[in-house]
Amino acid sequence: MELRLIVEVVTQYLDQQPAADKLRIRLYMALRQAILDRTLQQGVKLPPTRMLAEELDLGRNTVVRAYEQLLVEGYLEGRVGDGTYVSNVVDAASKPAAPKRLIGTRREGLSRRGTSIVNSAASSVIQNGAFMPGVPDVDQFPFSLWRRLLGKYLHAGQSRLLHYTHLGYGPLKVALAGYLRVTRMMVVDPKQIVVINGSHQGLDLCARMLADQGDRVWVEEPGYWGARNVLSAAGLEISPISLDAKGLAPTADDWAQPPRLVFTSPSSQYPTGTVMSLDRRLELLEGAFQSGSWIIEDDYDNELRYDERPVASLFGLCRRQRVIYLGTLSKVMFPGIRLAYMVLPEDLVDAFVIGNSELYRGGRMTEQAALAEFIDDGHFTAHIKRMRVIYQERRDILRQEMESRLGNAVSVSGGHAGLQLLYRFNAPVDDAQIAAQSLAEGVVCRPLSMYYADKHNSRAGLNLGFAAVPEKAIAPAVATLVRVIERHL
Amino acid sequence: MELRLIVEVVTQYLDQQPAADKLRIRLYMALRQAILDRTLQQGVKLPPTRMLAEELDLGRNTVVRAYEQLLVEGYLEGRVGDGTYVSNVVDAASKPAAPKRLIGTRREGLSRRGTSIVNSAASSVIQNGAFMPGVPDVDQFPFSLWRRLLGKYLHAGQSRLLHYTHLGYGPLKVALAGYLRVTRMMVVDPKQIVVINGSHQGLDLCARMLADQGDRVWVEEPGYWGARNVLSAAGLEISPISLDAKGLAPTADDWAQPPRLVFTSPSSQYPTGTVMSLDRRLELLEGAFQSGSWIIEDDYDNELRYDERPVASLFGLCRRQRVIYLGTLSKVMFPGIRLAYMVLPEDLVDAFVIGNSELYRGGRMTEQAALAEFIDDGHFTAHIKRMRVIYQERRDILRQEMESRLGNAVSVSGGHAGLQLLYRFNAPVDDAQIAAQSLAEGVVCRPLSMYYADKHNSRAGLNLGFAAVPEKAIAPAVATLVRVIERHL
Repeated sequence: MELRLIVEVVTQYLDQQPAADKLRIRLYMALRQAILDRTLQQGVKLPPTRMLAEELDLGRNTVVRAYEQLLVEGYLEGRVGDGTYVSNVVDAASKPAAPKRLIGTRREGLSRRGTSIVNSAASSVIQNGAFMPGVPDVDQFPFSLWRRLLGKYLHAGQSRLLHYTHLGYGPLKVALAGYLRVTRMMVVDPKQIVVINGSHQGLDLCARMLADQGDRVWVEEPGYWGARNVLSAAGLEISPISLDAKGLAPTADDWAQPPRLVFTSPSSQYPTGTVMSLDRRLELLEGAFQSGSWIIEDDYDNELRYDERPVASLFGLCRRQRVIYLGTLSKVMFPGIRLAYMVLPEDLVDAFVIGNSELYRGGRMTEQAALAEFIDDGHFTAHIKRMRVIYQERRDILRQEMESRLGNAVSVSGGHAGLQLLYRFNAPVDDAQIAAQSLAEGVVCRPLSMYYADKHNSRAGLNLGFAAVPEKAIAPAVATLVRVIERHL
Repeated sequence: MELRLIVEVVTQYLDQQPAADKLRIRLYMALRQAILDRTLQQGVKLPPTRMLAEELDLGRNTVVRAYEQLLVEGYLEGRVGDGTYVSNVVDAASKPAAPKRLIGTRREGLSRRGTSIVNSAASSVIQNGAFMPGVPDVDQFPFSLWRRLLGKYLHAGQSRLLHYTHLGYGPLKVALAGYLRVTRMMVVDPKQIVVINGSHQGLDLCARMLADQGDRVWVEEPGYWGARNVLSAAGLEISPISLDAKGLAPTADDWAQPPRLVFTSPSSQYPTGTVMSLDRRLELLEGAFQSGSWIIEDDYDNELRYDERPVASLFGLCRRQRVIYLGTLSKVMFPGIRLAYMVLPEDLVDAFVIGNSELYRGGRMTEQAALAEFIDDGHFTAHIKRMRVIYQERRDILRQEMESRLGNAVSVSGGHAGLQLLYRFNAPVDDAQIAAQSLAEGVVCRPLSMYYADKHNSRAGLNLGFAAVPEKAIAPAVATLVRVIERHL
């Protein structure tokens, strides 16, 4: 596990410690918790005290004393002349003297659906670096510009922006409608747009406003596990539908039991990157119209398109109001912004505005106003344009490195848009194990198998994000990853 | 309807119009939509063009031409020498030539639960002024301080705050734990705190993590309708439980069918302001322990307490981990902030952190960091202290005005904490009609009957918010309200 990653983990855990405590205590608690959580796993070599002290900007004595205490308590073990390693925590934690885990692990008292949410959870504590898929490079964000815009709307004269809102901030919807018209050929009235807190919230809203407990939803197989979890937590029955080269490929048997909802990412399927063909799109729209199904179009990666094929949205193609369009700002602004939007068929707008307000309450008009101006003044498209160049270079480096080192052992797909490349293994391997071992050596990746609802019919592969890793860090990270992979081939 | 309110309504609707359109078109569209939505009802007298132009900072001709067009189309009618009034919109809207409502009203295609959410919705478009309950005076918010703190954490060196987060920003949890220790006598580990987007999200999370479809939840009768809607949308069966002078009063029959969840606001029941007695608290905790129920404690108004009785929280009283505590920042910061927090029994923390992340994704660490510093540096308590003085004066003026004008016709309750007073009528009247007529004359209030799950057993009253109305505006608004009330007594 490389130093950079360890420092990041320790920093995250340090943030969780009471600021009032002494630094030595905070560092001790942070390391201990990281070890108990297995974020720092058995065998990880900690950096020398002098180096960690420098990285964290702490006194060296602070680090020495934290290490010493963890050595005494058995969380760490020292090997003479070799350094300090994380011990076998199962043993350490089961010793009666060991402090109990601060975050409880008992699951008594949870509901069935609560237990199921916990058991299917898959989001990662690490959100950065090689090769976390789905996250942008936040270091490139135009901070000072955004600060200035937020400040402009955070003034006594703008106090009404601090209230709850039902409709959201009008000019933002106008700005988004303009953006969608230009980039997605979607002609929408700004009133059809509902601003939400993220696409998970939009999905949840669709699941509740449009479907009842036990209703069937089609999801892509493989597909975004997060969407499956949200839809399942809303009581829907998940029906995985296979993909082929043309995209989502429901059979006649599938249509014989039509779904209430269809969740799909036609412009760039996640995680395969497949673009749904026009005939498949028309079939899907016709089928949905015939069976009264609603289609949720997740256009999560549309902004970052590297080649010249503009792909029309399903929403824009549909003349019969069967499509709900989900757009996110997590990839082009930043993940923590928690602003996304839905575009709705006109007949649903009123109900969704009410439902959104009743279930979640609206607000954050200051941010919405700043974002509206950010878009209107062209900063949004300028930022996208700039990032597209950066990401494209990183994608190319990753592709070259993987090809030169693995050749025919893997097949690549995706990469015409978005933040990741999918590598399928051409021989059977345990991709989850590869991902786990790679993580232990400091390289994050997502096994393809986790994207399958039906794990028994999954294919092995790795989803590699290239966006949040600097160019010069790509080759070394690929080298590490390939070493792990080669142990399995 | 007073000028101030009309200006606010028109401003809100103006914000929804495309910025690209000419001002005259925008004003015309805004007024028309407000009339179609019945936000400006039949008979409302519009301000003279010169006055509206000044208030909205528009040219007078712009207003004149918008009025003229609306007069021609029948939305407004002029009375010679008397002014301009809103026409009977039913007629206007049903004319074939009238433009259709831009926001669709058809409900086809919604699920049963979606329809039910829409039908039970009750939140108000107007969020300010006399006498909107539950909203603070956002004009008093320390804008420049908050701007400075946000700016401090919105820097390239703080880019990691732009990522998704599972655990939330640690120092905020530490700051909140410190605040709860001092003000609520709650000894909590910061790790027990989960930062959420608002108490509705917290309620939804509890409903899904702890209860399954069809499980029973006790709610207070009368009680917060918003909570009922969220719990019901999560598939729970709502059991309204009566209140008496000591608070929530479940009978032996109620306990014979114990609930999965109990939703209660013991420190200051909403909307009655009743404080749950200690013996009743202990009974509730014991009952919940015996029956394996979870209690959700909504401490929505705790910060704004005007008398010297500190009221311990249920959470602090409970030794057996049956209570989930919900705290909001909407009342002491501002409603649109969309940051709130839950305090969880240790055994639930892990599952709720995962559930929150899977269902909603976390983020907004910049705001969380700013808030942590706002609390740590004492600005939070200073702001509360300052607002307490302002609100207490407004409460006293409202109470005096109501008493001097209505005397024994009403009985007041609440007001020892929070942002509103509840007035019950001592004779049977239609409180919903009073509220509607009062709104038409520019005074917002909530009829007590809307807080009842069982409308047939409701009592009549008015919930009056005193926080978002300046001192000198209180007496005239009471005068208006009393004129309406007297027509019904």
